[in-house]
Amino acid sequence: MTTIAKLLDKGPAKVINLGLDLFAEALEADGVPVVRVDWKPPAGGDARLAACLAALEEPDLEARIDAANQEALGRLIDASPSLVSIARAGDVIPEMGEGLFLHAGPPIEWERMCGPMRGAVIGGLLFEGRAKNPEEAGSIAASDGIAFSPCHHHSTVGPMAGIVTPSMPVFVVEDRTSGRRAFCTMNEGLGKVLRYGAFSEEVIDRLRWMKEVLAPVLRETLEAHGPLDLRALIAQALLMGDEGHNRNRAATSLLIRELAPSLAALKGRGSEAAEVLRFMDGNDHFFLNLSMPACKCAADGAAGIEHSTVITAMARNGTDFGIRVSGLGDEWFTTKASRVEGLYFPGFGPEDANPDIGDSTITETAGIGGFAMASAPAIVQFVGGSAGDALRFTRAMYGITAGEHQHYRIPALDFRGSPTGIDVRRIVETGVLPAVNTGIAHREPGVGQVGAGLVEPPMACFAAALERFAEKYGGGNKGAKGQRGKGTK
Amino acid sequence: MTTIAKLLDKGPAKVINLGLDLFAEALEADGVPVVRVDWKPPAGGDARLAACLAALEEPDLEARIDAANQEALGRLIDASPSLVSIARAGDVIPEMGEGLFLHAGPPIEWERMCGPMRGAVIGGLLFEGRAKNPEEAGSIAASDGIAFSPCHHHSTVGPMAGIVTPSMPVFVVEDRTSGRRAFCTMNEGLGKVLRYGAFSEEVIDRLRWMKEVLAPVLRETLEAHGPLDLRALIAQALLMGDEGHNRNRAATSLLIRELAPSLAALKGRGSEAAEVLRFMDGNDHFFLNLSMPACKCAADGAAGIEHSTVITAMARNGTDFGIRVSGLGDEWFTTKASRVEGLYFPGFGPEDANPDIGDSTITETAGIGGFAMASAPAIVQFVGGSAGDALRFTRAMYGITAGEHQHYRIPALDFRGSPTGIDVRRIVETGVLPAVNTGIAHREPGVGQVGAGLVEPPMACFAAALERFAEKYGGGNKGAKGQRGKGTK
Repeated sequence: MTTIAKLLDKGPAKVINLGLDLFAEALEADGVPVVRVDWKPPAGGDARLAACLAALEEPDLEARIDAANQEALGRLIDASPSLVSIARAGDVIPEMGEGLFLHAGPPIEWERMCGPMRGAVIGGLLFEGRAKNPEEAGSIAASDGIAFSPCHHHSTVGPMAGIVTPSMPVFVVEDRTSGRRAFCTMNEGLGKVLRYGAFSEEVIDRLRWMKEVLAPVLRETLEAHGPLDLRALIAQALLMGDEGHNRNRAATSLLIRELAPSLAALKGRGSEAAEVLRFMDGNDHFFLNLSMPACKCAADGAAGIEHSTVITAMARNGTDFGIRVSGLGDEWFTTKASRVEGLYFPGFGPEDANPDIGDSTITETAGIGGFAMASAPAIVQFVGGSAGDALRFTRAMYGITAGEHQHYRIPALDFRGSPTGIDVRRIVETGVLPAVNTGIAHREPGVGQVGAGLVEPPMACFAAALERFAEKYGGGNKGAKGQRGKGTK
Repeated sequence: MTTIAKLLDKGPAKVINLGLDLFAEALEADGVPVVRVDWKPPAGGDARLAACLAALEEPDLEARIDAANQEALGRLIDASPSLVSIARAGDVIPEMGEGLFLHAGPPIEWERMCGPMRGAVIGGLLFEGRAKNPEEAGSIAASDGIAFSPCHHHSTVGPMAGIVTPSMPVFVVEDRTSGRRAFCTMNEGLGKVLRYGAFSEEVIDRLRWMKEVLAPVLRETLEAHGPLDLRALIAQALLMGDEGHNRNRAATSLLIRELAPSLAALKGRGSEAAEVLRFMDGNDHFFLNLSMPACKCAADGAAGIEHSTVITAMARNGTDFGIRVSGLGDEWFTTKASRVEGLYFPGFGPEDANPDIGDSTITETAGIGGFAMASAPAIVQFVGGSAGDALRFTRAMYGITAGEHQHYRIPALDFRGSPTGIDVRRIVETGVLPAVNTGIAHREPGVGQVGAGLVEPPMACFAAALERFAEKYGGGNKGAKGQRGKGTK
């Protein structure tokens, strides 16, 4: 009797099948019960990445990484961002100056900018009065007449193209815990808007009204009202069907409700007060430009912690997708931006879509947005999914995060904290990518939004960051243990 | 061989166990597999009620009842209530006059009124200037100096004590489909308020401010804004964590947001506009007094349909709980009001609580409130339950309703329509009582709210209504079939 025959002789076989289903299916066809374990080799079987992961599992190092990640998580959670003022971008944004335009995503120059970002730059030059028409603006932009820098390098975030010019008014958000500040322009509404690359006269006129009426009226309102606690407001909105990225109806309503009494009491602003309230009421995404800098405040606080594998920025410029990792400082890890899976407005289709664009993924970076999808099943329904899918999105994110947010809680999960602090190790190990939902811009300048949907960030930038991390921190052990099997988490 | 032995001889026994678990447990202890069916005798085994149910199952009659209930359901769903104006109660409420006070629940006279209702009557007399102090007010009320009538008899609903006096301002809600109107006072806020039986100077002062500032400012606002679609607003709020009875934060926010621009634009109302916005912002239940008349409009439309077993009113006066059934017209079926299972404010306990009170169960009658609990897990969490409990409350209500609301949808149930059109047959048959959540008033006049919780209406009034229905419509067959077993639905 062979060893295997002896084993089988002891009674009916109990079979556990790891990974691929082939073996299990053959046995089940013969009536043998099989327990299936959903297993994949770590890092999708990539030997080099598996070696990096293995190097970071050296016990002392792993303990140090885990401790650093808990520090990063704590800072993400403890940040207490408030809206404190509204000011001119050039006056308050660090190292902004008058000759600089900020843009969304990792660094990029005019030559490689996508259509909607070029459109927004053209609109920005028209708005600043530096060009008389789009052609002139294009020439200025192409001939080094203007310098570009990522919003993220200036404590700023911008949705979609994310163009910030010196004369634009920006929200000033301050973390009451650390004193750290973050900035964001004000949301223009839907339809033809600069952030989607449109630059027609109506776009520029609206930007002027925002500068001349909206910003001063809201600044005076805030002065009368005092700082507005954004963390408390976001926490409420997550209990009311928002996830803080693509659904902001509750937060926008709560913001209006909170500011309206002070706004109506302003002296000599009667008809302008009504205009401002009407503008805010007309745009459910008005609050997005506050949830973003609130998240930027939190994420910047978690940056630069030695040994931490927590992601502190995910951002797209419409050409590249880029991330930053806490323990790797200011370095960007970039790769080609993904296509968005989505629904299109009538008359548009996937061939019109620009790849993924904007800094709004700062919401997912800080534990809301796609990570809190379970709070906002309406978003998943929009792209044909169910409430159950929304729960699954959020549940999957617990597998790639360092912990749960104590303030941002999800009713449908019995008020469990939102999954927070994305761990780049877990993404590479499990192959589970961060859940992101987003708008879709037309790929040509001047058109605007054409749809909305869900997007999976590209794995390559997470892999690159992990390799760099292993090089910096796990050098001595790199590859020493070779490839080790480990179940998905 | 006996017949049973022959049966068992054919192979291993397959056992299905109906109802009580004793038999199943004994077999399972011997290793016999048992399929358990959760069965209870209809009407909890009450032979008289089972005979009534059986009489209504005569096929022609049952078809007529089902058709009538679909008609009632259709009218509940199709009602399209809008807020059209604000007016003085005595000027607009049908058959109101100047000598009449309206109250919550089924008919009741001063002698049998509970403490909080007496307190609110006293406050009403002080507010009307008909008494100089509480003692004098008490004498007037006790000596037929004032007539009483249920709100429900005057197209009106009132939360808690529900006292409406002629000088109070009321919301005028109109069903744009039928032209039918419903009325409700304006919500005073939390703490010491008339509807919970308080009548101190601060209570009366607030009622005066509401009459002199709040009502005229909102009336002018509405004139500028035009009619406000309440059905659309409630539908939105159900997607945002409200259930329209005890959670109204989203609806109140949406209402403020919708009215604020017109309000801020009013001429010569600068500081009053701010006061009004502050008052609404200070009270998450401001919208309750709009969801109630919206539901009253719908429920009144479903009343008086021959053969319909759909409930068109559930209301409590703090002494009695009463219901009306569509096919039984204006007749009330009443029984002693229940105690509320709830949580109490510090310093108060169950011994301080008045029994269940108020017309706010009109929300459940029209398919929201406790029936839409799955939309508002925060309410269940408040009394120690889970999000799963909230789903279970709503799911159970599908078993006692005629259908689902096409406009009021529940995200956590994949946007399934809220269970709507309570069928008194199903309640008696299954023993499943309508899910209701409510505030708790102190049992003495003058104190106010002491807690909040969940309440089960008493079965007796549903049983009485069913008996009356069988008498009216099923007379010929009454008891003919005797008691028939039927599984729970």
